[in-house]
Amino acid sequence: MAISVGILGATGYTGAELIRLLHSHDKARITYCSSRQYNGRNIADVLGFFKGSFDILIEDFDAQAVKNRCDVVFSCLPHGTSMDFISQIADAVKVIDLSADYRIRDIQTYHDWYGEHTSANLLKTAVYGLSECYRSEIKTSSLVANPGCYPTSILLALIPLLRRGIIDPAGIIIDSKSGVSGAGRGLSLTTHICETAESFSAYKVGRSHRHIPEIEQELSSAADCHVTVEFTPHLIPITRGMLSTIYVHTDYDENELRECLNTFYQDSTFVSIFKDGFPSTKDVRGTNRCLIGLTKNKTTSRAVIVSVIDNLTKGASGQAVQNMNLMFGLPETEGLASLPLFP
Amino acid sequence: MAISVGILGATGYTGAELIRLLHSHDKARITYCSSRQYNGRNIADVLGFFKGSFDILIEDFDAQAVKNRCDVVFSCLPHGTSMDFISQIADAVKVIDLSADYRIRDIQTYHDWYGEHTSANLLKTAVYGLSECYRSEIKTSSLVANPGCYPTSILLALIPLLRRGIIDPAGIIIDSKSGVSGAGRGLSLTTHICETAESFSAYKVGRSHRHIPEIEQELSSAADCHVTVEFTPHLIPITRGMLSTIYVHTDYDENELRECLNTFYQDSTFVSIFKDGFPSTKDVRGTNRCLIGLTKNKTTSRAVIVSVIDNLTKGASGQAVQNMNLMFGLPETEGLASLPLFP
Amino acid sequence: MAISVGILGATGYTGAELIRLLHSHDKARITYCSSRQYNGRNIADVLGFFKGSFDILIEDFDAQAVKNRCDVVFSCLPHGTSMDFISQIADAVKVIDLSADYRIRDIQTYHDWYGEHTSANLLKTAVYGLSECYRSEIKTSSLVANPGCYPTSILLALIPLLRRGIIDPAGIIIDSKSGVSGAGRGLSLTTHICETAESFSAYKVGRSHRHIPEIEQELSSAADCHVTVEFTPHLIPITRGMLSTIYVHTDYDENELRECLNTFYQDSTFVSIFKDGFPSTKDVRGTNRCLIGLTKNKTTSRAVIVSVIDNLTKGASGQAVQNMNLMFGLPETEGLASLPLFP
Amino acid sequence: MAISVGILGATGYTGAELIRLLHSHDKARITYCSSRQYNGRNIADVLGFFKGSFDILIEDFDAQAVKNRCDVVFSCLPHGTSMDFISQIADAVKVIDLSADYRIRDIQTYHDWYGEHTSANLLKTAVYGLSECYRSEIKTSSLVANPGCYPTSILLALIPLLRRGIIDPAGIIIDSKSGVSGAGRGLSLTTHICETAESFSAYKVGRSHRHIPEIEQELSSAADCHVTVEFTPHLIPITRGMLSTIYVHTDYDENELRECLNTFYQDSTFVSIFKDGFPSTKDVRGTNRCLIGLTKNKTTSRAVIVSVIDNLTKGASGQAVQNMNLMFGLPETEGLASLPLFP
Repeated sequence: MAISVGILGATGYTGAELIRLLHSHDKARITYCSSRQYNGRNIADVLGFFKGSFDILIEDFDAQAVKNRCDVVFSCLPHGTSMDFISQIADAVKVIDLSADYRIRDIQTYHDWYGEHTSANLLKTAVYGLSECYRSEIKTSSLVANPGCYPTSILLALIPLLRRGIIDPAGIIIDSKSGVSGAGRGLSLTTHICETAESFSAYKVGRSHRHIPEIEQELSSAADCHVTVEFTPHLIPITRGMLSTIYVHTDYDENELRECLNTFYQDSTFVSIFKDGFPSTKDVRGTNRCLIGLTKNKTTSRAVIVSVIDNLTKGASGQAVQNMNLMFGLPETEGLASLPLFP
Repeated sequence: MAISVGILGATGYTGAELIRLLHSHDKARITYCSSRQYNGRNIADVLGFFKGSFDILIEDFDAQAVKNRCDVVFSCLPHGTSMDFISQIADAVKVIDLSADYRIRDIQTYHDWYGEHTSANLLKTAVYGLSECYRSEIKTSSLVANPGCYPTSILLALIPLLRRGIIDPAGIIIDSKSGVSGAGRGLSLTTHICETAESFSAYKVGRSHRHIPEIEQELSSAADCHVTVEFTPHLIPITRGMLSTIYVHTDYDENELRECLNTFYQDSTFVSIFKDGFPSTKDVRGTNRCLIGLTKNKTTSRAVIVSVIDNLTKGASGQAVQNMNLMFGLPETEGLASLPLFP
Repeated sequence: MAISVGILGATGYTGAELIRLLHSHDKARITYCSSRQYNGRNIADVLGFFKGSFDILIEDFDAQAVKNRCDVVFSCLPHGTSMDFISQIADAVKVIDLSADYRIRDIQTYHDWYGEHTSANLLKTAVYGLSECYRSEIKTSSLVANPGCYPTSILLALIPLLRRGIIDPAGIIIDSKSGVSGAGRGLSLTTHICETAESFSAYKVGRSHRHIPEIEQELSSAADCHVTVEFTPHLIPITRGMLSTIYVHTDYDENELRECLNTFYQDSTFVSIFKDGFPSTKDVRGTNRCLIGLTKNKTTSRAVIVSVIDNLTKGASGQAVQNMNLMFGLPETEGLASLPLFP
Repeated sequence: MAISVGILGATGYTGAELIRLLHSHDKARITYCSSRQYNGRNIADVLGFFKGSFDILIEDFDAQAVKNRCDVVFSCLPHGTSMDFISQIADAVKVIDLSADYRIRDIQTYHDWYGEHTSANLLKTAVYGLSECYRSEIKTSSLVANPGCYPTSILLALIPLLRRGIIDPAGIIIDSKSGVSGAGRGLSLTTHICETAESFSAYKVGRSHRHIPEIEQELSSAADCHVTVEFTPHLIPITRGMLSTIYVHTDYDENELRECLNTFYQDSTFVSIFKDGFPSTKDVRGTNRCLIGLTKNKTTSRAVIVSVIDNLTKGASGQAVQNMNLMFGLPETEGLASLPLFP
């Protein structure tokens, strides 16, 4: 019997990506979609390319309807709103929250970066949904905080190395680049094709991007000490794709680092370490994969690690489906096995 | 038991697209891949993003090996070479040829546009693989000539209307636009990103593109008279996608034309007629669908029909898989049901 | 002494393009810029890339200030608003209007396509600013209606042929494609990079685009008979560039058509006819040029003519500067001689 | 009287960019263009968009012809070949070499990264052509080694800070991103639009890019100590534009760093420091400008500096023309004053 799935905020990019992935998922069917903006319309009228393939009436959020009709709910709502709605349903259905609301364990840190937290009790029960690193916790959780896209690309590369203690937790520099879909479907000059195409820029330079506390929380936990990072996000004029170039000090050589990662991910289908060379974002477009390449620069005693994901898939909706699979005892790859669109 | 599939010329764009689609096909498995250029290498070394998901040793073409190990073969070879190889195996395996070699029924016409035809006997047995229009013939065929991308986008829009006689077969003008992947993986300034990005151009203007005889053959057959078309292809600086804008004289109104198409495609999952508005190429990216919009201009007595496909999927490898499904009695949508990558 | 130039609506794409062109113009200096939205700010704060190169205080529109400080005014305002403002200043300064307000000579036609016309008297004095075709009228005019981008690309190709009577004025079909900057700087999903990049679509298919009456007015005048056209615009996922593919019946051969165009444009620097082959939009990017290629299809008795311009330059601000040069007795190419940005 | 200019290797991207810039230069005219590949053809036949604006016969390299007809020669030849040709003419004409041949002062270092150096005597006379930093030396030089694109974007940001000693010369990390035109007009899968568009990747990660010795030579000179950098180049799927994100340790605050740069560049038109915010590559497209933004992260005691240039203009041909202006006593901005193409 199929899992009944609800999606809150179904008409944005992560909602649409969830629908795309679940459409190919043999064990789940979408029974509920909400959107304040498009309440009362059919989703195939809002996202026209669904026509003939998938359709469902979009409803306004109703806690009782969710409880009656869903086994699990994905929330694609913005932070703040997300915990407001989730706190009304989390007693009755499993929840995977794609917002930041349950990612930050320290409530003061959440307050500093995002604002007041109104769901402290639930927060204590949430599991950080970086699938490959918290698999067993996710399996038994009923509230998963799905990681941010930047953190996913960074943490998958660094957590195994920090847990093993073979890179220096101090002085980590992360230079990340993201496709524009990460900015969502909202309208601004930043997403106007004439302003963004054929351009490249940095944004939120310095200690200002909200993913920093999430990254530092998880790196600190892996290193078992307080970790501070330098993090600079950039905007690539492409729709999907994220690449993080990470600079770390280490006394270990390239093979030792690679071996550490290979061992950690030996049972993880979605994470692969390149034997040589470096991945490009197109290698993972539309897939739930994370590809990692690395080299050791002997002159500087630094390792340079390059990690790529699709920000909407492994960086959001794909990892959310992977977490659902874990929570329901399904094979982790169910609905997520497709090859990238090439070319 | 799965169908054993061989792919000749597996490392080009249509070959890679076949692998992507067959990877999600429950009833087929790839048992043979050939490529002269990459003979002896693993395909996951040539197309790196396959690594961890799919791999097979690339071989040089060997007729006996094909016969031993394949139930069906897709040929992604260039015309000329394709019939040379197919004629060595067609007695023993089913063949779907993505080249032009078996599309043109009149051997003199083939000669005029492509050069000498060396496989005349086999040509007589070939079926033109426009799935929705020749479904029953394809089901019983063992050699299918898979249509060209431009013809597919055009014929699906026009054949039903011409068969019913509700548009004028004279004076048809077709203005088509294709993504660059249609030019293949070969290197030229035309595919150099710095020359092609942020540009748009027409090519082979006038009576010069080789898809013209294929289009005219099928339109003539549908109209039951000799049809001549004006056809202008253009290059869009995108990877995948094809849009044909078609101008035809007609005394019928918009609803009658739409009704004719709707009736014709009522049992065809992959072809949809818009009730209003017009499709964009992104609506079908990576899918096997053809979307059609139309309007009647009363001032000019012309209908304007807009048809979109993904040139590599419905325009090549997707339709080829659809034809395989028909030839093997499988559901037509097997392996082809995925939603487009959005955004 | 330099011409003092005012720009109304200076912060949109055509305004910014005017500033770019006038910045390299030896005989003009910008003395006045208005914008309701950015009133009171410096333009180099609004369009940051001007910083260090060009700056001026943006003002709200004030008729007296315009009259005091400008010899000529370019209006980049939307239609309707444009004539409201122009009618307050046209008695004292020369005006080049980039909106549609003074393009349509028949006031009822304007009403049918755009709405009420409130400046009928001034309309009678306006000259249609297709520089190469109305050079002498423009030279003595004080109110020039700068042509639309689509009309410019189409009329430059067809007017000489219709005036000479060597193509059939009936049955003309125009399939045009435009870069996204033609849609302006306003925000909508149509200009969201994630929705538009890697896509291609038709819009306003049938008798619905507002450039149709402008095109037909000028073609009728050139042919000296009532001309009706079929016109379909499309959106190319590039910023700048416009290509029109035009289908006309003719009994004349390719050389006769080319010769006619060559003769007409022999003294026109900006319009060039290809001896063979066809232009691409990148050939003219950022320039005021129009390049035309053509062929005769003997099978269909049709000529296919391909015309490219930069929609913001020859299609808008470049032609406006060219008209200013004509109106002030300057060399036509002043400020407009630069080569395209390649690659 | 105009300067007579020769261009060796005129048909590549830097050659074409030189022609574009010199076409708007009032004091120079191109009298000689060479290309082995296109020898004997007109350049407007090779680069079609020049037609009607600029043309010249392409010749094979001939030292005597160069000496007879040129006051200055730009070499756009590959390294190795460039010094072979330059050594035949440098006694008689001024030379600006866009290759790496005269950039590296230490001949052993050149050998390690590029191969044998065959023009050691001339090397001793060459001046490194980073215009803003070596202005007086360039003015009196007759052989200028025009800097690489990456070094230009990096050195302009760091040299003033290192000379003043307000950043730590140890531990500098440079994460650079370049448009594809930097790879030149040659054909490879890396420049195939279908492989590169909608993708992003790192390349030559670790101590492998040939610009490293050039960067380190100049930083060492500025810091007056041996400087080693971490440098990672990336490929952006755009044609023009380069952005370097630079991480340095410093005890100084943001205002002190900015003030240092502002003072250094107070008389330099082409380099501007943002008061706040960060530049994007589109801000400088087609211009000779370098824009720099920076912030100090107090948590990490690091400054993050973002520098953008157009890799073909300030990163190659624009700076070369700027150097020509210096060498001939012309205003530095002659031919280089145009605004960026926006949008």
